[in-house]
Parts: sequence; structure tokens; C-alpha cells
Amino acid sequence: MRGNDVRGTVADGFEPVREVFEAILDAEGADLCAQVAVYHHGDPVVDFWAGAEAASDSLLGTYSVSKGLAHLVVALLVQQCVLDLDQRVGHYWPDFAVHGKGELSLRELLSHQSGLAGATDGFSMAELADDRLVAERLGAQRPFWRPATASGYHALVMGALSGEVVRRATGQTVQSLFATHLRDPFKLDLHFGLPADQDHRFLPAQPMVATPERLRDLAASATAPNSLSGIAFNRHHPDNHEVWELPNLQVVRSAGPASFGAVGAARDLAKLYSAAIVPIDGIAPLLTPDTVAAFGQIQCVGWDLVLRQEKAWAVGFHPVSEIYPSLGAGAFGHSGAGGQQAFADPRNGLSYAFLRRRFHYPPQADADHKRILRAVYAAVEQVR
Amino acid sequence: MRGNDVRGTVADGFEPVREVFEAILDAEGADLCAQVAVYHHGDPVVDFWAGAEAASDSLLGTYSVSKGLAHLVVALLVQQCVLDLDQRVGHYWPDFAVHGKGELSLRELLSHQSGLAGATDGFSMAELADDRLVAERLGAQRPFWRPATASGYHALVMGALSGEVVRRATGQTVQSLFATHLRDPFKLDLHFGLPADQDHRFLPAQPMVATPERLRDLAASATAPNSLSGIAFNRHHPDNHEVWELPNLQVVRSAGPASFGAVGAARDLAKLYSAAIVPIDGIAPLLTPDTVAAFGQIQCVGWDLVLRQEKAWAVGFHPVSEIYPSLGAGAFGHSGAGGQQAFADPRNGLSYAFLRRRFHYPPQADADHKRILRAVYAAVEQVR
Amino acid sequence: MRGNDVRGTVADGFEPVREVFEAILDAEGADLCAQVAVYHHGDPVVDFWAGAEAASDSLLGTYSVSKGLAHLVVALLVQQCVLDLDQRVGHYWPDFAVHGKGELSLRELLSHQSGLAGATDGFSMAELADDRLVAERLGAQRPFWRPATASGYHALVMGALSGEVVRRATGQTVQSLFATHLRDPFKLDLHFGLPADQDHRFLPAQPMVATPERLRDLAASATAPNSLSGIAFNRHHPDNHEVWELPNLQVVRSAGPASFGAVGAARDLAKLYSAAIVPIDGIAPLLTPDTVAAFGQIQCVGWDLVLRQEKAWAVGFHPVSEIYPSLGAGAFGHSGAGGQQAFADPRNGLSYAFLRRRFHYPPQADADHKRILRAVYAAVEQVR
Repeated sequence: MRGNDVRGTVADGFEPVREVFEAILDAEGADLCAQVAVYHHGDPVVDFWAGAEAASDSLLGTYSVSKGLAHLVVALLVQQCVLDLDQRVGHYWPDFAVHGKGELSLRELLSHQSGLAGATDGFSMAELADDRLVAERLGAQRPFWRPATASGYHALVMGALSGEVVRRATGQTVQSLFATHLRDPFKLDLHFGLPADQDHRFLPAQPMVATPERLRDLAASATAPNSLSGIAFNRHHPDNHEVWELPNLQVVRSAGPASFGAVGAARDLAKLYSAAIVPIDGIAPLLTPDTVAAFGQIQCVGWDLVLRQEKAWAVGFHPVSEIYPSLGAGAFGHSGAGGQQAFADPRNGLSYAFLRRRFHYPPQADADHKRILRAVYAAVEQVR
Repeated sequence: MRGNDVRGTVADGFEPVREVFEAILDAEGADLCAQVAVYHHGDPVVDFWAGAEAASDSLLGTYSVSKGLAHLVVALLVQQCVLDLDQRVGHYWPDFAVHGKGELSLRELLSHQSGLAGATDGFSMAELADDRLVAERLGAQRPFWRPATASGYHALVMGALSGEVVRRATGQTVQSLFATHLRDPFKLDLHFGLPADQDHRFLPAQPMVATPERLRDLAASATAPNSLSGIAFNRHHPDNHEVWELPNLQVVRSAGPASFGAVGAARDLAKLYSAAIVPIDGIAPLLTPDTVAAFGQIQCVGWDLVLRQEKAWAVGFHPVSEIYPSLGAGAFGHSGAGGQQAFADPRNGLSYAFLRRRFHYPPQADADHKRILRAVYAAVEQVR
Repeated sequence: MRGNDVRGTVADGFEPVREVFEAILDAEGADLCAQVAVYHHGDPVVDFWAGAEAASDSLLGTYSVSKGLAHLVVALLVQQCVLDLDQRVGHYWPDFAVHGKGELSLRELLSHQSGLAGATDGFSMAELADDRLVAERLGAQRPFWRPATASGYHALVMGALSGEVVRRATGQTVQSLFATHLRDPFKLDLHFGLPADQDHRFLPAQPMVATPERLRDLAASATAPNSLSGIAFNRHHPDNHEVWELPNLQVVRSAGPASFGAVGAARDLAKLYSAAIVPIDGIAPLLTPDTVAAFGQIQCVGWDLVLRQEKAWAVGFHPVSEIYPSLGAGAFGHSGAGGQQAFADPRNGLSYAFLRRRFHYPPQADADHKRILRAVYAAVEQVR
């Protein structure tokens, strides 16, 4: 069997997705372990995986897809009136209200507007895996930009900040609430803190296929390690590891930091996002239409000071329909640095997840997702 | 006579405008009915039209040029202190102040920042032509983005929203005020609600000249009908018509919705914008310099979530000098979706209007207007 | 000796900077008088100059590098609690608080958000050189855009506005404070108001090397003299001079307007920015780390209505690391219209200055600076 042979199941009408998935695998130029899953109105309609070492129950690093999982917990807490998006962060977390951050609201924090995209002096890997330490250090810090006047992707720390608000308000970590309220009821193979007895199912992440040309291109657009982008990716700290390596670090896998520490499978991501918007396993949708609308609402749009590109942010999620033109307004989810993606499209009753073991090159997998999504939505049109 | 033969009159020194107009007609690749008119310090200096079926008194759909007409009424009301741009919309219209819209000011509403770019479930054509129904439905709705943090073109509904503020404050519709205070005193052939006995002068709008290549290009950049852009153009409603067809619908022509329902002629548009800034027909300028400055002032600039491009907004108008480099600061007006344009340039004592029967391809006529305006401003330099 | 022969001194390890400087001189296509200087941890490590008429003590116009000098004075006043960045401008300067500017804060003024990018009717050159007159006229004016919702480079007037705040708060001009607190203690050859007995050392500025092609390209992108960009560069006033000529006007050189009137040498600019962040001449750093962070903090980012490009602003300075990827976060300084540049990079203990007598073409010297800075930072890596 070729490594790129696609395995899994697909519902009637969605077969064309396989072809697009295969084309993406073929274009990689090396064995690629990847998973793609789609739910439609609560039913799994695509569940494919590929890769020489991949099994049907393999687990992969999700990178920043983790932030979406953590923020589904935040959405539940807002729905339960435990948190209020228009409340000042300092209301829940008084130590945060320093250096001009006193008026910042929870919705502004969640849309990457706090200016705390990284730590002045960086973090060791052990520190970075410790959400509480990260939050404490950043909460005391002067923001890199004037809060609520611009956004910049809080790549490695957003979950620590939002998680600290959760902890202050509930006494529990966002990871623990995720396990209790999302993972367990839906039997999801998604883990903030992978149990040691499951670690054998984890397939370590792989770096992109590096060619001299690719390395030269990346170097040409590189920013300094202590630039704002460098700081957001912790490149200014001596103990730094490259982003692709993060899930391979034991300390990350076992602590499960909310920003990038979740490990799991695409089918469970798609199931979770489906459960957020439609009934599944006999359980009512997790989120009411009002909550869905509140978290899919676009909070800001403009130049992202970390990513150095135009960017729109919803509340703790990407407003993914700004990126993928086949989606409905209000679709919300979160991508991962290596080409991962997971979201719900409430208007179309769809959810989608894609994980890949090897980092994508160029560092932008949206073209791949666009192609798959075109096939998915064409299928939806047909089966309707 | 060729359809493209240009008819009309032109003042000494402005003859080169004819040549540019002819070039635009020739480039169309089909018969094009179009009108272009310019006033300079209150005098008509260009009044051209072309098209096989065109007569000197033909009427065309103005599309969103309508918004500029409605907002000239708003400017008069602000000048008369009936409306206050810094007042909350909810002050005039209490039902509007829900779902986080309570603090939105009238100037923010008029600069497309309310987030109400369309209706969740869309409108039938009859509903869309009914400004009061549109306002009622949108006023109660959750905005698609956080009000006053971004803009997105309220393509089909802006006039219903601003018109509702007018109606609440004055008891009269913006259409009725337009007729009383602008159309009648200046004897303008501009109509929100075309009288049945004038309908024979209306030339139905035409779709762009479609080639397989153009259709393919448009499809490649298309967004989903229920994406934010789709919703703003009502493409998610089963009873949807394409934008180019709107003035051809009897219900639109007779109701005259403020966002896109006006029918008229370029010479009257240019006359009205001239009357706004200089004396005409023995009547003092409609707007004082202070009002002109207040409505030409740029209110916001950034990524437009509907148009998916960088966009600046003045108060209910386009700050057209941001688009056409030959204009003075503070020029204000409004374009239409098919390539229409009408504005005043107070610093240069000029007004300009261009209507066309057939939708422009590509869907962006600014290059045409730039060329004409270069010729106009060169003529102004010469005759000065 | 060729005019382009580079003279000056360089520390061990920084020799490669000479080669890049020579390449820039060679690319000019004409004799170019230019100066480049670098300080590293308080030591001068690069001090080069070139040009047929250049002497080691030649003085050049600094253009808007002047704004950085004036705003170092503002930073000192904030550090001394004489000024408060979050205070309303109208608190210090009551006449300013009209036409919707009442709530504008000092930090918003300093980040080019006031909307007072130029005067409605422009300035004669004598008026433009008179900061107090400029401030009085602009303070009374309606802003071109809604204050604090957008930025636009206040090219010729920013220093008059910030200087008026200084004057109101201290009773002294920013120029006088610069002389007392910065120029004299560090014996800097930097002058707001060049003494007559030093005028012989000034090398008059030169226009860009004009070719028919370059002139055509510039004309193609030109905006109207009374457009917003034209107004910001005072091109709508009959007594206007082109920007490159400004330091050649006696009235400018002797009055030394804070926006563009300073004359000096690159080595003194680099020394001053070094003195701002590290001990020099036995004097403690001028600015505390807190002040450095406050003025390097990004205040806004978005479309600049005057420059017509995406732009980020710190408090009175450019956040230069947004432009030069080799710099650390928080680097702050100010460029000049002809290709001048001067800044400090606190994270790396570096300062940099570059002056050139002839205007750069294309009107964007960032590529030159990027090349020099790559060589500088490579040298820093090596000598560390």
C-alpha cells in the first residue's frame, strides 16, 4: 500500500472529497499522514486518513486548533452567564488591569487585541507549557501595542490568558472543564494532557519538506527573533524550539497548554464542532443560536501586527468564512500553524476538520482547505 | 447613426471630454446607453448622452447613487438641527438599541459601521423595496460585526436604515422630503417612485456583456450566497434577483427604496450636486460650508467586510477624492453598482454624474471615471 | 578622489557596512553626499560619509527626522510627569478642543490621528516655518477625518502641534528645550535654527536625479494639489515649494520648525538616539525603560490617508521594526522625506542614522536601509 492511499469512510455523494484529498497528498512530495473529517447535520459524511504509519486511531498534534477547543468552553460559560464578553478582564483578574489594560474587555482579549502577544524575555519550553505561569507573567506586562486599537495573533499564549479568566471565574482550569463538559459526554479522542497510556497512539510531528529553495524563501521573509513576530513565537528565548516541534515535547503533551497543546483526531474535532451547532448522540446542541452568533460575530479587522497580514477576528475564533468563500456568514473555528483546521458552519449545518502530521509548506494551507471545501459544498448541494 | 454617436452639449474648453466618453463607448463592445454631465460653478458645461434607444429625456436606474440623494436630505436635516450626527441612533429609534447597538451614533450608522449589512434570512423583492419593513427587521437584528469596529457596505439596506431615522425624527419619509425640498425646487428629473405616466421614458437596465471568460472570472471570485457578501446582496433569499435587474422590477421603480430605487438622468444628478455647493436657479447653496465639511469628513477607513477591499467612508457618502486623484479633499458623492457615479467637489466648484444602462464589466468603473475626470479637470485649468 | 569614495571610521567587525554603503552610492547615478552612523551599546561603530563637496563636519537637512528630535523632548516631559499621554490635548491647549477634537488625547495627536494634516487654505513658506502660527491656525480647524478613527501623516505640521502642547505646558518652545536638554549636554551638531555663523557648513539639498521616465512615473501617481495628500504637503498654496527645497529656504533654516527644520549630521543623530537608551559621555540614559516602552508602543495601524499606504504609528515616532525585519520590537525613530532615517533599537542596544543630500528616487529609501541594517546586525552577531 502506498502511504498516500486514503482509508476511511465516506457518505453517498461526498466521494469527490477523496479525489481532492488524494491530490493534496500527492502534491506533498513525501509520505503525508493526514486526516480529514466532515459532519453534515450531525452525521459523519467524510472520515478519511492517510499516511504510511497512520492507523485509524492515530493521534496528531492540533497546534492552535487547541484554542478553538478552549474557547468552546468559554462560549459555554458565556451562555451560562458565568462570563460576560463585555466585562473588563480586570473584573475577573484584577492583576491584569495594569499598564493601560484596565478597560480591555473579555471580547477584546479574545480577539487578540490585548497587546500581550508574547513575553518581553520569552519563556523556556517548560514555562510555555504552564498556562498559569504564562498568564501571571503576561498579565503584569506592558502591552506591545495600545490595547483595543489593533490586533496581533497571540500565537502561543492566547489560551493561557483566556484560561486564566476561566480559572478566576470558576476555580477550574479550562482544560478540566473541557474534559468534563465536552470530551467525556461526546467520548471525544481529544486531549489537553495526553494520558501516558495513550501516548503510543501519538504520531510525532514532522517538519516541512525542506529544500534549499524553501529555506532560502523563508529566510528572506524572516523577522528578527526579538521582533514582535519573533517574540510572539518565542524565538527570542534561548530554550526555544521551532513551532512544528511543540507537540513532540513531552512537557507539552502532558500539560496540554490551551493555546497549542491539544492532541487528537480530525473525526473528533469535526464531531465536536458539529455538536456545538446541531443535536448529536441524543444531546441538544451545545450552543444556542444566540451563543453561536455571539462567538461568530466579527470583532475587529485590520493589519495583524504579528502575522503581518490583513486579519479578521471573531470572539476567540477565526471568522472562517472570511477566508473560505464557500462558507456561510458566522462560520467559526480555528486553524493550526502546520496546516490544521477545524470549524463549524452553522448556516449550512456543517463541520470540518483537517489534521496533518507534517508542517505545510508554504506556511499557509488555506488553498488546500478551499479545494476540499469546494468539493464538500458541491456535494451538499447535490444531496440536498 | 451609430448607437455610440454622442449627442448633447458642451461648453467651450470642455470638448475633450467628448473624446474620452466616445472611447469608453467604443470599448464596450456593444451598444451602450450612457449619460455624462458636469457642472462648473453652477453652469452646465458637459451634457452628453449616447445609445441607440436613448433620447434626450431618457431615464435610467441610478442604483446606489440613490443613497447620495437620500443623504443630501439627511445633510439638510442635520443643517437644520433636526438630526445630530453624534446622537445615538437609538435616541431617534428606540427599537434599534438592542444586541450591542445601543451606543451606535448616527454618523457611525451612515458610514456603514452598524453591522446590519443584510437580513439573516434575506428579503423577497417586494420586501426589499419596502424601506419601513427592511428597517424594522434589521433594527431588531444582531449585527454581523461588532458595531463601530469595522465597516461593510450596506449595499441594499443603508437607505432604509437612515430613512427610518429620518422618519422617526420628522414623521415624513426621506423620499417625500427629497421630492419637496430637492426635486421640486430645482425641477429635477430624479424620482424615488417613478410616476406611471413617466415610466415610458425609463430604459430598462441591461446585464453586462457576458462572455464565457468573464463568467468564469466572476465565478472564480464568487462567495457563497449565505456569506456576508452574499447576504448583503440578498443572494441567500429564494426570491432573489441579480443587482442589475433591480430597477427593472416594477415594485422597485414604483416604491423607490432609498438605497437603490431612484430613477433619473445624469444632468439632473450633476445639477443637484451643484446646487448643494453653489447658487443655482437663483437659490442659495443648499448646504453651508460647515455642512459640506461635516458630510465630506472621513469617518472610517479599513477593510470593508462586504466588498472585501480597503474602503473609506464619509457620512453617508463616499469620500470620492480617495478614489479619483484629480479631486479636492472633501469631495462627496455616491457610486452605483453598475458603474454609475455622482458627486460634488466643493473645493473646485464642480459636480459630476455618469449613468449607464448596461452593467459595467469588470464590476468597477473607476478607471472610466478617472479618465473622464482627468479631461474635466484639465479643461477647468484651461478655462480658469 | 571619486565623489563616492567613502571616508570615516568603522569599528572592528563592522567593515562590511562600508561595502553596502558604497553600493548605494554607486547606484545613485550621480554624486551623492550621504552620511551613515551607528552606535552599539554607546560606542560609535560606524561613521561614514561620502560626496564630492562633503567634509567631515558638513551639515545636511534632516527633514522629518526633526520630528523624532522634537518628540524625544516630549518623551522627557512625559517621563518628568509634565505631560501625560492620556490627557486630552484640550487640557493643555483649550483652543484646540473644537470641531469634535475635544476628546483627542496627546497620544492620539502624536500618532497622527487628529485629522489636522494640513491647513484648509495652506501656508506661505514663512508661515509654515512659524510653528506657533501653524498651531494656532490648525487648532481652530475642523479635522479632515474623524479624530482617533484613522491616521494620516501630518507631514509638515506635526511638530507645530506637539510643540504647542509643550509650549502651553512649560512656557518654552520644544526647540529651546531641545537645545538645553539634549543638544548642549551631548555637544550635538543638531540645530533647530542654524546659527548664521554655522551656515557655511550646510550643504544645500538637491532634487532627485530626474529622468523623463521618473517624472512620468511620478506624474502618473500624482494627486491633486488640493487633495488630502496635496494639502498635507501644502501643494495647494500659491507660495508652495517642493519638499526637497525646504531646508534650502533661509526662513526654514533659521526658524527651525519642529516638523522638518532641523539641520545636522548623522553621527550626532546616532549619538542622540544612543544616549536615549544607554549611558553615554558619563550621562545616564535619557529615557527610563518605562519611557522607552511607552514611546515605542504601537498606537494605531491602518490605512494612512495622506501617504495612501498601510502604516503603523508609535507615540510621535515610527515603530521602525514594523519596516525593518532585523530590528527588535520597540525600536523607535523617524524617517525623512528624502530618504533620511534615525532610530534607536533598545533591545539590541543599537542606534542608526542616515542622511542624504539628494532626494531619493523612488521616494522610498527603506530598501537601502534594510541592506545596511542587515550588514549592521550581522556584524553585531559576530562581535557579540
